[in-house]
Amino acid sequence: MNNMNYMIGIDMGTTSTKAVLFEEDGRVVTSATQEYPLYTPDSSVAEQDPEQIFAAVLQSVRQVMETSGVQPEQVMFAAFSSAMHSVIAVDQEGKPLTACITWADNRSAAWAAKLKKDMNGHEIYLRTGTPVHPMSPLAKLIWLREDHPQIFGRTDKFISIKEYVTAKLFQQYVVDHSIASSTGLMNLQNLDWDEEALRVAGITKDRLSQLVPTTYKLEGLDPIYAGVMGLLPSTPFVIGASDGVLSNLGVNAIEPGVLAATIGTSGAIRTVIDRPVTDPKGRIFCYALTDKHWVIGGPVNNGGVIFRWVKDEFAASEVETAKRLGINPYDVLTKIAERVQPGSDGLLFHPYLTGERAPLWNPDARGSFFGLTLHHKKEHMVRSVLEGVIFNMYTVLLAMKEQMVPSVIHATGGFARSPIWRQMMADIFDQEVIVPESFESSCLGAVVLGLYALGKVDSLSVVSTMVGPTHRHTPIPEHVKMYQELLPIYIRISRNLEKEYMAISEYQRKIVHQ
Amino acid sequence: MNNMNYMIGIDMGTTSTKAVLFEEDGRVVTSATQEYPLYTPDSSVAEQDPEQIFAAVLQSVRQVMETSGVQPEQVMFAAFSSAMHSVIAVDQEGKPLTACITWADNRSAAWAAKLKKDMNGHEIYLRTGTPVHPMSPLAKLIWLREDHPQIFGRTDKFISIKEYVTAKLFQQYVVDHSIASSTGLMNLQNLDWDEEALRVAGITKDRLSQLVPTTYKLEGLDPIYAGVMGLLPSTPFVIGASDGVLSNLGVNAIEPGVLAATIGTSGAIRTVIDRPVTDPKGRIFCYALTDKHWVIGGPVNNGGVIFRWVKDEFAASEVETAKRLGINPYDVLTKIAERVQPGSDGLLFHPYLTGERAPLWNPDARGSFFGLTLHHKKEHMVRSVLEGVIFNMYTVLLAMKEQMVPSVIHATGGFARSPIWRQMMADIFDQEVIVPESFESSCLGAVVLGLYALGKVDSLSVVSTMVGPTHRHTPIPEHVKMYQELLPIYIRISRNLEKEYMAISEYQRKIVHQ
Repeated sequence: MNNMNYMIGIDMGTTSTKAVLFEEDGRVVTSATQEYPLYTPDSSVAEQDPEQIFAAVLQSVRQVMETSGVQPEQVMFAAFSSAMHSVIAVDQEGKPLTACITWADNRSAAWAAKLKKDMNGHEIYLRTGTPVHPMSPLAKLIWLREDHPQIFGRTDKFISIKEYVTAKLFQQYVVDHSIASSTGLMNLQNLDWDEEALRVAGITKDRLSQLVPTTYKLEGLDPIYAGVMGLLPSTPFVIGASDGVLSNLGVNAIEPGVLAATIGTSGAIRTVIDRPVTDPKGRIFCYALTDKHWVIGGPVNNGGVIFRWVKDEFAASEVETAKRLGINPYDVLTKIAERVQPGSDGLLFHPYLTGERAPLWNPDARGSFFGLTLHHKKEHMVRSVLEGVIFNMYTVLLAMKEQMVPSVIHATGGFARSPIWRQMMADIFDQEVIVPESFESSCLGAVVLGLYALGKVDSLSVVSTMVGPTHRHTPIPEHVKMYQELLPIYIRISRNLEKEYMAISEYQRKIVHQ
Repeated sequence: MNNMNYMIGIDMGTTSTKAVLFEEDGRVVTSATQEYPLYTPDSSVAEQDPEQIFAAVLQSVRQVMETSGVQPEQVMFAAFSSAMHSVIAVDQEGKPLTACITWADNRSAAWAAKLKKDMNGHEIYLRTGTPVHPMSPLAKLIWLREDHPQIFGRTDKFISIKEYVTAKLFQQYVVDHSIASSTGLMNLQNLDWDEEALRVAGITKDRLSQLVPTTYKLEGLDPIYAGVMGLLPSTPFVIGASDGVLSNLGVNAIEPGVLAATIGTSGAIRTVIDRPVTDPKGRIFCYALTDKHWVIGGPVNNGGVIFRWVKDEFAASEVETAKRLGINPYDVLTKIAERVQPGSDGLLFHPYLTGERAPLWNPDARGSFFGLTLHHKKEHMVRSVLEGVIFNMYTVLLAMKEQMVPSVIHATGGFARSPIWRQMMADIFDQEVIVPESFESSCLGAVVLGLYALGKVDSLSVVSTMVGPTHRHTPIPEHVKMYQELLPIYIRISRNLEKEYMAISEYQRKIVHQ
């Protein structure tokens, strides 16, 4: 091996932890992924075993070290990324009293609703940046206190999965401003725990970790774990931020006006601004990347999960045929959609099949097709579904636009592979769409933040030298015009149907339990 | 041949004219159908050639006489049924200046809207019983006057297809109260032409036929045409009524509380009451059967046409397979629907794919699926479509219920062949459903009215001896409960979306013309 310096990004996600070993200039040397289960015994529970995640961190780092043959002393630092919104109750010995309750866990739904309605939730959101929703640790704390008082009483600290891992590695309870900004408990202006939020949660500061910047350097790695990972006990770790904000950094979407739009199973649209802002209408989040970089935007439930649904229910036989020919099923979908002009001849689809987070923040929202005539065939329905998912993301942008002026979209995720889909996004958003050449965005974001934290670079903008564009799509004016006519109708419909969303979801819950 | 007496029902429909030869007790001897085209050069035009229809009348009667071997003197009478809402402008020689403009012709749409909005149309409806709609001859007269003033000026009389035929056969312009009650021009209370309606149409009484009861006897049949038909010039013809009201009679749905529900390409639900009434909200029609029998109800556009759509777009491959096995495609639909419980697990379908007449009377209404979750599969969509068509008919009944108390439904049309569909109707309507043993309902209705007109029977109720029930379905309480919970949501949605129906249909019209 040469004398080059290396760095490791570690991203603890909901389905796996990934470690990526980079050269100092951002080139990927190797990566390793360790999967673990998400426990969903019923539809409202979504838990993980924190020990499995801790083991996955050790194992994935060990694996990149072994595979690469890089020596421990060549590693400048490691840096963390992790999923947001997790809660683990631990006792005085640091032993978990609960599983890792993930963002997807819905058991605090009733308390989130009460928080919004009766407990000044919106005001708390305006100061803390985390939308009032069952995903929010604030809602989870209320739920634990009210529905599981014994656990709540025995809990020494409420921590996130990242704190669980760093506490084991470094024997200290610290939480970075980024993860803390996704708890609903941190005041974005003074970067301290919010008094009213603590009062509503029924806790005092000492039951949370110490707040630190995302550039905070963890030192004094437990020698045993260092050995397991193949690192030196002196290797510094940068605490890093959340996966969402780091992926913005990792796709080079940190300059003013640059939007990062991603559709995986769910989706998100985000942008970086230089100060924390929240939305009077409560539609968008505001999370910290650094104390000078704030990410606003919205996560949408209904991304790839909707594409899978439309594929299975509307294109099953075509997909079957395509599979035999070795064609990707999603290419079949876009081929079908291509038979229909933009706007699906006036057929609108609201993609709220799993309720929706941004911009509605309404778990009772439901999907719909609207505008059907005899002229509309299956291919219209398929196209309108693809368009509907992007319409919904556009409505998140409308809220963001009150805080920034968009100039370009960096699109990532499976959908960005398809030219039709990318053009659809360019046309619906009326913005240039660029696909960044990026595969490990959260891990790359983590190490770029690490370079900055350790003073190796002056600014996060160095990421632009590490990520180039691959595809570029410009809006087509005729398409833009059609979409711009449909979007106000799309928006009004979901507003008009708010009460009916509640009524039909109540009916649906009742019959399921019959 | 024996000395038995015979009678002929003649029904002039939109696709064909049918003559049925009956024995005096209602048994069918033979029938003949003569088809003719409906000219639809573009989607707003729906015309027919009145001479083709006249020829079809002569030919179909001739055919039943020839086939049966019944002698001319054995025919007691013939009686007419015909489609409603047609307009033919004729000159002083009785020559047509226009084609027969049918109920389906939409060219007066803008004038119908103006009539409703600016010309006191609703008040006129309250007195005349014909909903304000492009189908209405009143709207057609305004359209002719404004958009075709030259034709309008040269017109001696505006008549319906039945008047065209009877004028040729009997050299007199008479119109029965039934057909007249479907013109939007006749006052239901005094059985005379309505003054305001005439003023709005811009005509005087002398440009319309003389009003007569539906029991009116036409005598003095043109000897040449009598010869062509195989009848005597002395054979009396009873002028009869419209096909809609006569089909109620023909399915034995004339007693109080009996509903006739039919789904063909479109659908209708009707009941007989003993006095003319109209609806303050304008949702239902009121047409005459006799001066003591009035039919209220509503026609729905979206019947079988929707079943065909869902079959083609959601079940094409299953139907293909079924066809090879000789299975009826609609049986495939009901089989698919059967996999899902009543209420489609909270998925609602509004069937307004061709706009809607009753109860919305809104050509801009559009179809929708509402309440979609990831749980909903193709079979849910199929079932919700079948249910949606019947939900819509039920909303017509809600308007009728303000005037009557329903006790039983007589269901006819293709859908009544299927036990699932019949049960669905019983459950959604929460009423017993009976399928009458009836194949030629409008022609049977015409001859029963003829028997009454000629004093051969005391009452129309004699029809009950001619029509027996074949199937009987009772509502299932658990299903009723589910549907009753969904129906208010169904109704509110179409109300909430009224403005969006307008917005999306405007968009759709625009892109079609691009």
